[in-house]
Amino acid sequence: MKNTNLSMLADFYEFTMAGGYLKSGLYKKKAYFDVFFRAVPDNGGFAIAAGLEQAVRYIEQLKFTDENISYLRSKNLFDEDFLTYLKNFRFTGDVYAVPEGTPVFANTPLMTVCAPAIEAQLIETYILLALNHQSLIATKANRIVRAAAGRAVLEFGSRRAQGADGAVMGARAAYIGGCAGTSCTLTDELYGVPASGTMAHSWVQMFDTEYEAFKTFCELYPNNAVLLADTYNTLKSGVPNAIRAFKEVLVPQGISDFAIRLDSGDISYISKKARKMLDEAGLHNCKIVASNSFDEYLIRDLIMQGAAVDVFGVGERLITAKSDPVFGGVYKLVALENEAGEIVPKIKVSENIAKIPVPHFKKLYRLFDNETGMAIADELCVYDEIIDESKPHILFDPNATWKTKTLTNFTAKELQVPVIKNGELIYNLPTLAQIRSYCETQVNLLWDEMKRFEYPHKYYVDLSQKLWDIKHELLKM
Amino acid sequence: MKNTNLSMLADFYEFTMAGGYLKSGLYKKKAYFDVFFRAVPDNGGFAIAAGLEQAVRYIEQLKFTDENISYLRSKNLFDEDFLTYLKNFRFTGDVYAVPEGTPVFANTPLMTVCAPAIEAQLIETYILLALNHQSLIATKANRIVRAAAGRAVLEFGSRRAQGADGAVMGARAAYIGGCAGTSCTLTDELYGVPASGTMAHSWVQMFDTEYEAFKTFCELYPNNAVLLADTYNTLKSGVPNAIRAFKEVLVPQGISDFAIRLDSGDISYISKKARKMLDEAGLHNCKIVASNSFDEYLIRDLIMQGAAVDVFGVGERLITAKSDPVFGGVYKLVALENEAGEIVPKIKVSENIAKIPVPHFKKLYRLFDNETGMAIADELCVYDEIIDESKPHILFDPNATWKTKTLTNFTAKELQVPVIKNGELIYNLPTLAQIRSYCETQVNLLWDEMKRFEYPHKYYVDLSQKLWDIKHELLKM
Repeated sequence: MKNTNLSMLADFYEFTMAGGYLKSGLYKKKAYFDVFFRAVPDNGGFAIAAGLEQAVRYIEQLKFTDENISYLRSKNLFDEDFLTYLKNFRFTGDVYAVPEGTPVFANTPLMTVCAPAIEAQLIETYILLALNHQSLIATKANRIVRAAAGRAVLEFGSRRAQGADGAVMGARAAYIGGCAGTSCTLTDELYGVPASGTMAHSWVQMFDTEYEAFKTFCELYPNNAVLLADTYNTLKSGVPNAIRAFKEVLVPQGISDFAIRLDSGDISYISKKARKMLDEAGLHNCKIVASNSFDEYLIRDLIMQGAAVDVFGVGERLITAKSDPVFGGVYKLVALENEAGEIVPKIKVSENIAKIPVPHFKKLYRLFDNETGMAIADELCVYDEIIDESKPHILFDPNATWKTKTLTNFTAKELQVPVIKNGELIYNLPTLAQIRSYCETQVNLLWDEMKRFEYPHKYYVDLSQKLWDIKHELLKM
Repeated sequence: MKNTNLSMLADFYEFTMAGGYLKSGLYKKKAYFDVFFRAVPDNGGFAIAAGLEQAVRYIEQLKFTDENISYLRSKNLFDEDFLTYLKNFRFTGDVYAVPEGTPVFANTPLMTVCAPAIEAQLIETYILLALNHQSLIATKANRIVRAAAGRAVLEFGSRRAQGADGAVMGARAAYIGGCAGTSCTLTDELYGVPASGTMAHSWVQMFDTEYEAFKTFCELYPNNAVLLADTYNTLKSGVPNAIRAFKEVLVPQGISDFAIRLDSGDISYISKKARKMLDEAGLHNCKIVASNSFDEYLIRDLIMQGAAVDVFGVGERLITAKSDPVFGGVYKLVALENEAGEIVPKIKVSENIAKIPVPHFKKLYRLFDNETGMAIADELCVYDEIIDESKPHILFDPNATWKTKTLTNFTAKELQVPVIKNGELIYNLPTLAQIRSYCETQVNLLWDEMKRFEYPHKYYVDLSQKLWDIKHELLKM
């Protein structure tokens, strides 16, 4: 799964277009494509970029095997020139991208691909798939983790994931977004996301009594005892049996790190009752893990109601981003090089003004206020522009140009980094722990007002004057 | 992707439980687990079972490599006995399942696993993942195909799928549900789902004019010409340029099989206008393909409004089952063999009566009316019961036992088939085309009243008297 050649995971039209570029002589034309999205899922204030590592590995490993080529030949659409081209295919272009874990906004390029048209076209589908999927789950996880307000959130959704990669890459993305771990063993083995787990109801049912099931588990796994308390009756049977097992097996050994898990019923009511029972038994250290169709909204409400939950296990609503399960990243041509080697901006006009992409090969800046350290706005510039931090800098609303703001004491940080140059990886892929930590730091640089679930404050994404002029010139044509 | 060993794609608790069964001596105890779901997504009348082939391949290939075992050892939870057990692991149990493509109902077993507890436990997560994911997409696809009322539906969602498997297995499941093909090339190569595609907006933008882009494509792919008509202005530019290219390049060659694709705007209005323009140009044979955030509801409405669409391309709302992206299949212990080799039914009591599973090792019958051939009800029996078709058969509502119905002229068909016996595959896995055709045939045996999107008629799932008695006896305990 980590090293699969996914060259054929492409929409069929990538091949008909690529073949057509070759035959019509357009294939060497250098094209610039942006990956961007038009709206944050769940009407959120921002998204979390993720999936870059998988996109990079895909490009590195991209090759067409003899089997792939035989399959394409069997479609009776492609000539041998094109099939020979594919046999020798290697990506030779450049890729710029926002690092994984970066909070990102609509209409800004998460990735920019500059490559001969034929190469840039062939990689479209998987690039989008990888970035869309993991950004979707990282964004959702970050919302859930914010709702949990410091309590640990564990990803528990493998069985409801949309396919094997949905589970594994989803757990990876959830970790980037701030989850503390996963139930998915393979994600731990492949990516080092801490996997944990103890028992299902079947464990309890397998024994003659619930107490025996608990006692046996504590004996076998004294340092990993999380007892599932709701197989029969949580408060009448599960919690009392757990207390007895803890006291008989673990407390005498001096072990104090154990927990119960609640998986049904009203978690607010039951967790408070269970907490009281545990405390009355002297087990103040015993944690309560809860898992029962949670998402950010329910967790926020449970915490408001004082639910005594220490750890939230979140399953299907995280791993599928149930409330809004699509991240709508697109891959759009924004510029082409002409014969003279000049970069010519391109635009796709739409009836819907919000669907018109920002043309041209661009730079994406994030502007930070030097006094607070907080992010003020993002600014899109033409690729050859540099923001001079030493001078006052005027921002204006691209849709209401009379609204301006002048920045003085600020830092401008380029968000995209060069990842691949002439087909070679030139970026040190960070570890997953580094990505997760980077995400947390960067989210902390956004104002709380942007983190609300309902009507978050709108962050500005502005255009430089030069880019605005180019866009509007193109629209007039 | 077709032959990946996914043994570690398991919730971590499967390993702690398995290790515990081994140590506590329970591991050889023969356990019976049912896979079932509690509600059809989107409040639909029925679901389509899918994913069995992947579940079977997973079980066949299940083995733990030295790498896997080293990883598990590093968790410092498992002893060498268990790790040695895993090294020699082979599934030795039995699996019964409903064939892929079968319409299925809540609370009936899509699969039953009878195996030593340790084996049955280890396969839980992936079995659920495979059946849940593909049943979700097959069910959604079947809804969309029904809405399209005979027009072809193509699956176009790879770029928005939740991971690589989400795209590939999703396209497989969509085909089972009735889609005519996919955009996903890999699904064609691996599973023979017909892949097709022609051009994106980038193709059109790559040329100096839209006409040139269309003309070149027709010349290069005369037998695969579907021209994307909305890059600039569909009715003012796209359709006239397409007509010109068809007439100049294809019509003189005697080619009559070509189409335009509409990807934005109001598809009802634009398709009717485009149809008129094509007809006035004498291109009555030119088809119209449309793709623009479709699902079953929008397609139903477009058809009601007389939209002139011949083929629907459906992307993100199908491949993620956006309106309800979780298929909630669970894996529950329903029986255990005792020392005497008797099968003892097990039940997990819940506060919520709807969440109490039907206990015991069961048989699932579908009863058909011999006069109409249509399905009347499903009936769950104890494993050793046989429904005698020659005698009047009394059905009763399990929640309102005084409501009865006596069947006389009927056929009782067992829905589950033996798939694996003592670890060996004994089932001839049907081809995907056979599965798709079986699905269509079986859906045709359900009354239209069950196929409504809003408040579909409820199909009955009844219990035999013997099974009902056992369940209620257990509940009293």
